Amino acid sequence: MNLKVCLSPHLLPLFDLTESIVVVIDIFRASSSICYGIDNGATAIIPVSEVSECVQYKHLQYLLAAERNGMVVEGFDFGNSPFSYTVERVKGKTIVLTTTNGTRALKLSEEAYRVVMGSFLNLTTLCQWLLKEKKDVVLLCAGWKGNFCLEDTLFAGAVVSQLKIENVIPDDAALAAEDLYNLSKADMQRYIQKSSHSVRLKNLNIEKDVAFCLQNDVVRSIPVLENGRLVKLVG
Amino acid sequence: MNLKVCLSPHLLPLFDLTESIVVVIDIFRASSSICYGIDNGATAIIPVSEVSECVQYKHLQYLLAAERNGMVVEGFDFGNSPFSYTVERVKGKTIVLTTTNGTRALKLSEEAYRVVMGSFLNLTTLCQWLLKEKKDVVLLCAGWKGNFCLEDTLFAGAVVSQLKIENVIPDDAALAAEDLYNLSKADMQRYIQKSSHSVRLKNLNIEKDVAFCLQNDVVRSIPVLENGRLVKLVG
Repeated sequence: MNLKVCLSPHLLPLFDLTESIVVVIDIFRASSSICYGIDNGATAIIPVSEVSECVQYKHLQYLLAAERNGMVVEGFDFGNSPFSYTVERVKGKTIVLTTTNGTRALKLSEEAYRVVMGSFLNLTTLCQWLLKEKKDVVLLCAGWKGNFCLEDTLFAGAVVSQLKIENVIPDDAALAAEDLYNLSKADMQRYIQKSSHSVRLKNLNIEKDVAFCLQNDVVRSIPVLENGRLVKLVG
Repeated sequence: MNLKVCLSPHLLPLFDLTESIVVVIDIFRASSSICYGIDNGATAIIPVSEVSECVQYKHLQYLLAAERNGMVVEGFDFGNSPFSYTVERVKGKTIVLTTTNGTRALKLSEEAYRVVMGSFLNLTTLCQWLLKEKKDVVLLCAGWKGNFCLEDTLFAGAVVSQLKIENVIPDDAALAAEDLYNLSKADMQRYIQKSSHSVRLKNLNIEKDVAFCLQNDVVRSIPVLENGRLVKLVG
């Protein structure tokens, strides 16, 4: 079983996805919120690349969520704060979501054998399922505007740390991610404070979101992409 | 002063190079051999992207060097082993060089304010010069076939470690590279043994090259790109 970490969507063409499970990672905050929303009973979350595509769903009874540069786009129900994806708001609802990084990474992965979403919130459930599937795995960090970001890499490292057993072959990026995760795991919130994204998030006044997204194993659902919609994996 | 690490040439379009010094890094082995060759008196090293371009220089009194997949291309004087770039072989000579990763990274950087080459062999000389220049710096890891590789990132981290003083703003990749460097510096050769590239290099029987390329501060020259030729920086 090959275990690879793709540190940016721009590097994805270097990976052969057709026989791999791709785990899309956008810790702050799309993949965390999607895991939380699906676990809280959202029927489906439809990822779209552009705000304009999101608007096209307006005539349906869907919730529309749009985030750009960390903020809710004006005129939308909400963005990608996990606190918007509670049972009260999302149970039985379909949500159409566009974000700066996460939904684009999802779109790029469509050719994969299977596409799921990972976050600290569903870490152990995800890893146990990956081990059971025995397929090659590509952990795709959505990053920030196409570039490397620390928190997505740390989560990739957390997955590597759980999956690295006999017969698992990690690539260089997986090894690096694992080492960075081990360095940070005792106090991840402190570790990521030095990152550029952390400064950005502080300016957005969403430190509560950050703390929420760094919790391990809050949910037991895995969102999986099926016909362009993220739904709860049954398996 | 912004200090950024570009973990792969594929990410370079995300960086604004026009006002930056780009340090091209290809530890195993192009940037190490180029630093060594320039220090050993090579007049110039001309990087070209393709083997076919290299051949076009055949009628001149140039040494032709070509490496693909870690091996010397058949019919060429040599590839990118540092042991081919000794005083005896290169002093007063011009070399035309094409490699799998390093020369392509150089070509992509041409629009930068200045392009230099870095390796552990000229680490401190390079860092002292960068501090003196007070320009934004992009450390460009050539990687392996476009993807992240451990050894180039570790060197980037070594540079970050020396440059990270007051008023230097590192990006996330720079912070990660520095942490990985600090983890590995006590015994880097052992650390990189776990990397995929190390397996590749072992198969090529070039462990001596690897050990050579991991030495700090063997030379005091900085190769700089001038009109498409790498020459010794005077400054």
